[in-house]
This record gives sequence, structure tokens and C-alpha cells, in this order.
Amino acid sequence: MTQHSTTAGGRGRRGAPSVPELVEKAQAGDPRSVGRLITLVEDASPLLREVMTLLAPLAGRARVVGLTGAPGVGKSTSTSALVTELRKRDLRVGVLAVDPSSPFSGGALLGDRVRMSEHATDRDVFIRSMASRGHLGGLAWATPQAIRVLDAAGFDVILVETVGVGQSEVEIAGLADTTMVLLAPGMGDGIQAAKAGILEVGDIYVVNKADRDGANRVRRELRNALALSDRREESWSRPVLMTTAHDGGGLDQVADTLAEHHAWLVESGELHSRRQRRAAEEVEAIAVAELRKAWAGLTQGTTLADLAREVAAGRTDPYTAADELRRVADRA
Amino acid sequence: MTQHSTTAGGRGRRGAPSVPELVEKAQAGDPRSVGRLITLVEDASPLLREVMTLLAPLAGRARVVGLTGAPGVGKSTSTSALVTELRKRDLRVGVLAVDPSSPFSGGALLGDRVRMSEHATDRDVFIRSMASRGHLGGLAWATPQAIRVLDAAGFDVILVETVGVGQSEVEIAGLADTTMVLLAPGMGDGIQAAKAGILEVGDIYVVNKADRDGANRVRRELRNALALSDRREESWSRPVLMTTAHDGGGLDQVADTLAEHHAWLVESGELHSRRQRRAAEEVEAIAVAELRKAWAGLTQGTTLADLAREVAAGRTDPYTAADELRRVADRA
Repeated sequence: MTQHSTTAGGRGRRGAPSVPELVEKAQAGDPRSVGRLITLVEDASPLLREVMTLLAPLAGRARVVGLTGAPGVGKSTSTSALVTELRKRDLRVGVLAVDPSSPFSGGALLGDRVRMSEHATDRDVFIRSMASRGHLGGLAWATPQAIRVLDAAGFDVILVETVGVGQSEVEIAGLADTTMVLLAPGMGDGIQAAKAGILEVGDIYVVNKADRDGANRVRRELRNALALSDRREESWSRPVLMTTAHDGGGLDQVADTLAEHHAWLVESGELHSRRQRRAAEEVEAIAVAELRKAWAGLTQGTTLADLAREVAAGRTDPYTAADELRRVADRA
Repeated sequence: MTQHSTTAGGRGRRGAPSVPELVEKAQAGDPRSVGRLITLVEDASPLLREVMTLLAPLAGRARVVGLTGAPGVGKSTSTSALVTELRKRDLRVGVLAVDPSSPFSGGALLGDRVRMSEHATDRDVFIRSMASRGHLGGLAWATPQAIRVLDAAGFDVILVETVGVGQSEVEIAGLADTTMVLLAPGMGDGIQAAKAGILEVGDIYVVNKADRDGANRVRRELRNALALSDRREESWSRPVLMTTAHDGGGLDQVADTLAEHHAWLVESGELHSRRQRRAAEEVEAIAVAELRKAWAGLTQGTTLADLAREVAAGRTDPYTAADELRRVADRA
């Protein structure tokens, strides 16, 4: 339990606000309350059920934008520059950094941190790193719930920054309305991009560090690769934009394109289906986490440890053990 | 279904070998058969049940070593150099690259690929990239099964290379007997290392690119940080080694230390408990994947899509929907 623990429905211990109070304050835009609710998500607090029940009818208005790309392409700088651009348009912006190399979660260079601090005093910008480490279900479990908190708190745009390696860019594509993939010259060319699987996930591609050698080649190769892998069912033609995020160059066009993509999502009905997909993943992730808790908690009869012992000793195979795990949990 | 599909227990279509034949040949060290079995894992083939039943009594002999580190520290070069060193000791080595930035899975520079190709003609080295993308359960699901294939095929050491960002290094620590964490000067110093959570997961730390400026500082800071975060329950004192993997420098000491750690694991009983933990994770991952399949397959009554629609519309919260999903799946 954390300092934010409260008694469900009532006033919390040590005067901490109750869940309904927190939700009400978060809805009014109080950053402390927003932060506390996200901490409950990070802590996988038992209070989340109550939080989510209260938030359910409040969410669904925000545009959720995923930013992903390999380490070194300038994700943090781009996030910061995009926040600046969106603020010029008077949009309230929430940032969730689930990127361990992000300055928000403590992984990157001091320069990035300083660059980001320009938003520190802006009440209409909320920046939060997500520590999903150790979670049952990780990113898939925590991020949609954190998004719902920011959404209910009235942020117009929620930027979710993830590092684009492994499965995370696939996951973010499942979570966001719009997925932006960042590349940069010298970091991996178009052909590598194709191999890394980014061609399937992006709605908008951005070649950052456009002032460097090779930027045009990256754009050209990426365009060719995108043409080959076109998602034919869609009428959205995926653009490749150029930016120099360090001085904000090209970010106006990025913000315009994000707005265009959002309009397309609404008109095409794709927004609806993406959000339904996101909800399905969220529901699944919660169901899985609850089951894992139940399995870990088996103490009577056959336990997960018993089954693991049999598997480790080669006396049974993991499939048979998995069947047995589900059977004993159902009976428990 | 792939070209490797067979009819369970019998002879496959188009003359493909049956599962028992594949397992027998793999056990005799036939690389093609080993490769086919891993393809079955990657494809989440329905034949895996039969494969794993046959492999269960054959596995448990190999030493499983996880290699992890941030992009750019020289993981691929280190893997290759370690393979060379282990071959000098006449050990058969299997390599699983679950690192999307690895040359084996197509993400890295041509130079690395060439460097690795020195092992291409060595029958006692098996190198395979794992494409876990799109899997239900991903790395946690596929990797232990691929490890079991290599284990049953008689490899003495199985190196599992993962990129150390986000949760992957935590996952690999759950899969390996010994976890080696690679760092390099200029890539992120000791303080960042601490933040990235690597201090909890390593058994052996290696500062690669030891000939570069700052290598000694990285070692010093890392040692300090490790001293502070010592895993007190363990009698293993975690060493920080120095290598120049590009010319094999220091790899003899790495191989010695791996052998020492293995001996410690056996003596302390820690090998047993780590393998049981790995088996538990494998069993859980399979059980989760089977449940997700069942949920996705709901067609009668309330489906996952129905529940997701209610959540997306804000008419219910994801926890209530998750409860309902489990209830309808139990009844189905």
C-alpha cells in the first residue's frame, strides 16, 4: 500500500483523499490528483477497480498519439517539440513516457531533461514516466488505464512515448489512435526499418534530424517500402514528414498531420474500431493479471510451484502442466 | 501451418518428417531438425504439445546464459566472441537472439553479421534469431520452449541474447541460469545503469569496449552501485569484468567466470530454484496463451468484442468487463 491508499468510498487514512475525491479533483485538472491516480495504476492498487468505475463514463474524448522509434532518433526531443507546438494551438497535453531511455523515466541525457523542463511550469501540460517494471501484464496492463486517467482529466492530446524495439511498437499501435514512427539518418535505414517491423504499425512517419546527411535517402527508401506494404483496406495514405526537432522545425506540419489523421479516423469509423481494439486488449490484460494473481495464490492442493517442479525435472511437459494449472485454479 | 507441418504421430504431408522423427534427429544434433522444431515454436504450432511431451525428459542439461545490455554496447560482437571462446573449450553452443537489433534477427550492421559468420560452418554452433513478434505471450512464451529444443539437442551452453530495454532484461533474468549484463563507456554510465534497473538482474557484469575512454569509470561506478544493491541472500559476489569483444580480449575470463557461476549455482541450490522459476513462468505463459485463444474464440453469447464495445463506450469499466470475460469463458 502507498501513501495514496484510501478506504474505498470513504475518507482515507491520514487524511488522504478518497477515490471519489481524487477523481473529482483530477477531473478539474488538479495535477497532484492526476499523478496520484497514475501512481495507483503503477502500484496495481486494489483501489483501481473503484477508480476505473468512476472514470469509465468520463473518458473517450482525448486523442491518443503514440510516438515510437529506435533509441537515438530523437524521441524525447520530438515529444518536447510536439508539446510546444500543440500548446501553441491551445491544446492541453498529457505525456506518458513508457520508454526506459526517456529523460522522463530517467534513462537519457541531461540535455534532454533540460529541454523538457520548459514545460514544467505549464499547468496544461502533464508529464509522467510510467514504471511498468514488475507489473503483471506490464505496458499492456498499465498504459490504457493511465491513458484513461489523463483522458478523464480533460487533456486534449495524450502522447505516449515508447522505445521502438521488440514488441513495444506493436503494443503502442494497439493503444494509440494515431501511431507516429520516428526515424533518423544514420540510425538504421529504410531497409532496416522494414525488418524491424515498423512498416506495419505507423500512421505517420517522421524522419527527424532532417538537416543531417542521408535524411532524404531515409525518406525515399521509407516511402518506397511503405508503398510496397500499403495497408490497402485504408484510405489514409501514410505520409513521411521531415523534422529538426531540436529547433522545432517541421513540427507545425506534424501537428497539422496529426489533426488530419484524427479527422480521417473519425470519418472512416477507424477511430471507433481502434478504440474498441484498445478496450479489448485492456480487458484481456486485466483478466490475465487477475488469473496470474489467482495462480500465484494457489496454496491448497497442487500449486504452481508443484507443477513447475515437475516440469523442471522433466517429469511432465509445460502444456500438460498448464492444463493442470487452469484446472486446479478453476476448482479453487 | 508451415511446410514443417506433420500429422501428429504419423508421417507428415509431402514427406515432411513426423514430430518423433524430428525430435530424434534433433537429439542427434541435426541442425535442420533443430531449426524446424524452433520454427514450430515460432509458429505457435499445434504440434508443440507433442514436441514438448517428447522433449521433456531430454532437457535440463544445458547451461542457459542470458546476455543483455542497451543497444550499442556490443552485444552481438560479445556473443560472437564468447562463442569462439566456448568452442575453444570444446563446448557445443546454441545461440538464441531475441534481440531485434541483433544481426541474427536482421537489425544491426553488416559488419556484425560478417563477424558472426565465422561460426556459420561450425556444426557445433547453432545460431537462431527468434521472431516472437505477434505471439500471444511473446518472449516469455516462446523462449523457454526454444531453449528446451536446444537443450534436448545436446548443446552444452545456450546463449540467449536480448536487448536490454524495458522489461526484456527482467524477462531474460527469469529465463537464464546466469544473466550477463553488458555495458560500455559512453553508452550510459553507472548511474543510468542503476536507473535502468540492470542492477537487480545481473550475475556477471561486463564492461565492453574497455579500451575506450571512460571504461574504468563505468566499472568503478558500477561496482559502487552493485555494492549498494547487493543481493544479500546470495553468497555469489557479482564481478565486473572488462572486455574488448572485437578482438576477443577478456573473453577467456568471461568464460571462466561463467563456469564459476555455474558451479556456484549447483552448489548453492540456486540452479534448482532458478529452473523451477523458469518452468513456472513457462507454464504460466502457456496457460495465459491458451486462455487468450479461448477468449478470442468466444462466439456464442457475450464475446470479447461485445465487452470491449461497452468499455470503449464508457458504459462499463475494464475490471467489470474482465470479470465477465472470465465468467463467460468458463461457461463456454
